[in-house]
Amino acid sequence: METVFQFPMGFKGAALNCGVKSVESTKLDLALVVSDLPCSAAGVFTTNLVCGAPVKVSRSRLPQGQARAVVLNSGNSNACTGERGIDDAKQMTALVAAELGCGSNDILVCSTGVIGRFLPMDRIAPAIPEVVQQLAETTDALGLVAKAMMTTDTVPKLSMRQIVLHGQTVTVTGVCKGAAMIAPNMATMLSVIMTDAKLLPAECHAMLPLAVNDSFNCISVDGHESTSDSVILLANGASGTGIDSPTDRMQLQAALNEVASELAQKIIHDAEGADHFIQIDVYGARDRQEAFRVAKSIAESPLVKTAITGADPNWGRIVSAVGYAGVSLKEEEISLKLNGYLLYEKGVPVDFDAAIVSGTIRDNREVSVELYLEVGSQHLRFWTADLTKMYVELNADYTT
Amino acid sequence: METVFQFPMGFKGAALNCGVKSVESTKLDLALVVSDLPCSAAGVFTTNLVCGAPVKVSRSRLPQGQARAVVLNSGNSNACTGERGIDDAKQMTALVAAELGCGSNDILVCSTGVIGRFLPMDRIAPAIPEVVQQLAETTDALGLVAKAMMTTDTVPKLSMRQIVLHGQTVTVTGVCKGAAMIAPNMATMLSVIMTDAKLLPAECHAMLPLAVNDSFNCISVDGHESTSDSVILLANGASGTGIDSPTDRMQLQAALNEVASELAQKIIHDAEGADHFIQIDVYGARDRQEAFRVAKSIAESPLVKTAITGADPNWGRIVSAVGYAGVSLKEEEISLKLNGYLLYEKGVPVDFDAAIVSGTIRDNREVSVELYLEVGSQHLRFWTADLTKMYVELNADYTT
Repeated sequence: METVFQFPMGFKGAALNCGVKSVESTKLDLALVVSDLPCSAAGVFTTNLVCGAPVKVSRSRLPQGQARAVVLNSGNSNACTGERGIDDAKQMTALVAAELGCGSNDILVCSTGVIGRFLPMDRIAPAIPEVVQQLAETTDALGLVAKAMMTTDTVPKLSMRQIVLHGQTVTVTGVCKGAAMIAPNMATMLSVIMTDAKLLPAECHAMLPLAVNDSFNCISVDGHESTSDSVILLANGASGTGIDSPTDRMQLQAALNEVASELAQKIIHDAEGADHFIQIDVYGARDRQEAFRVAKSIAESPLVKTAITGADPNWGRIVSAVGYAGVSLKEEEISLKLNGYLLYEKGVPVDFDAAIVSGTIRDNREVSVELYLEVGSQHLRFWTADLTKMYVELNADYTT
Repeated sequence: METVFQFPMGFKGAALNCGVKSVESTKLDLALVVSDLPCSAAGVFTTNLVCGAPVKVSRSRLPQGQARAVVLNSGNSNACTGERGIDDAKQMTALVAAELGCGSNDILVCSTGVIGRFLPMDRIAPAIPEVVQQLAETTDALGLVAKAMMTTDTVPKLSMRQIVLHGQTVTVTGVCKGAAMIAPNMATMLSVIMTDAKLLPAECHAMLPLAVNDSFNCISVDGHESTSDSVILLANGASGTGIDSPTDRMQLQAALNEVASELAQKIIHDAEGADHFIQIDVYGARDRQEAFRVAKSIAESPLVKTAITGADPNWGRIVSAVGYAGVSLKEEEISLKLNGYLLYEKGVPVDFDAAIVSGTIRDNREVSVELYLEVGSQHLRFWTADLTKMYVELNADYTT
């Protein structure tokens, strides 16, 4: 049964084409998400020091903890564009604010696409009143928003969870885009997560990073950290229900985590050119940071990725990636399972039938890498994709 | 004019096939380098905590600062092979020692190839007396040694420099192998550098890391640090000439640096599947470590590599890789030239003819990336290769 994705109560959206990338392009490239009521808001952004103008503008506005809308475009990231880029990002928010009758500071902005080109404001500006007019709370409108965020994505990415708090249904709905230039810190280019729960700004600020940590920060396509990564949480309180107890909070946090995790996995499923979705579980690490380093080192090794592409159970590449992860380990403290088969146990190779294990890789899109360390009790899960000729082809022919 | 590579005085070599990888294989896979006289010796090894048995054995013997010979094999790295792997590595050295009439401790060992398989000692052991019998000081023998080290390398890699000290010619000759699983710390799989200069062990220990630092530690193919990386320096003093003054020392260090640098560049020129040799110069960094981080971040980004593959002057990918290098920088402190064309100046895009710059990438194997920071005066040079479909093909089909 397919999920019918819905906006949480009190949210609307719309999207259209205004030719951001080129006048000829007909793909959706401008989207708007609006709440009827002012929202509590939080954001998590790229840690790349070279970041897009929209990241700078949105980041500067979030400390106030309040927002009404997010305007997004694909086709141009408005990054590395200096002062003019900042002015353009601010103008986008001012134009939306004028239509909605609120202050510019209540509008957030996200852009994704090629780096280093100025936005075609002559085409974007007249499109903004138009996109405001088309705002709707329908499933279709939500789908259009997700589509308008796409760059090299092949499918729109949505996730929704509903929980019942105090007899009232509370909805958490997220949209995101991302298919490459994906590395932890953060791992998506853009995501907006909306809820009709009633949250204080401080609650948004506390809950969003927890959700991001085990989702968008635990995926990697190519280890290249983008200039535009943004996850924004908007909570408009339209359900009338807040989190009054630790149990309520846990329930809502769980819904938020699941939405973020599902979106993150959808990015990896749509990773550019990928043939395999690789889930890496690290068990028995000393702490989260060490587990993370080990998982990331495996996930970002081109030799591990290409081994999976070739259905090659070449576990030496995995174990050697553990060895340079910057974590203090002895070989005798490392064991490895690939698709459930034990290949390496406490520093010693295990006899196995390579043809059988190779077959399990070749015949399945999902691959499981389980690494057992013996230095602690921390578990961490990380997702990545394999590296194919198609990835090279897609990325060797992007701007020119 | 092609260089005629020669052993330094008092060195000999030989190589043969003994079926390390498989009984059917006919490629050279066992090599031996021997000095008539005991050598002062030094080694620099992988920092990977998961390292091959030969690395452990050779590393444990080098503190004595003395060696007679290095025995090498390709086709099997004897890594992740537990106690049995250590025993096999030691047995290789014991067999060589027995033939040469010296102690096992004076023999170093290097292995390269697939990880996690036991060495076929039943084939290696009888081949050792044979390879000793074939030892010769000829150019041919030296070439065979370089060939026997190759795995996925397409060409043998040699370098030689001669200097005159106190009226006496001193020779520095190096051989190496490496084409993938190449990351800094270190960046080659195996290299042996020989000289007939008369050096104390302490001089070898001091000079080798300096040479490695700006050569094998400044290249990256895929960022995957191998378990077997070893660079060994042997100085047998057969020229009768040592380094008596700071000038002598500088001259010999320069020769050693040039040999190491040329070998490192040959590895990148032979990088698996590469279409382009990319030289990255970072200028104006605060210190070497920061310059290194920036260069490595650019060099290891699959998006930068594939842009070069596609002759795409997509400078945003380069600048954004600088932004996540972990170095404190503002966009206004960054400028970028690609093949001599200024594309980004102090945080602002520069108008340029993309077709012309693309043409310079497409029509040349060598690509120059020059990054100008404005936070210091440190320069560092780094070499890498682009990422092609052929790399994926080669690495998706290695063991099975």
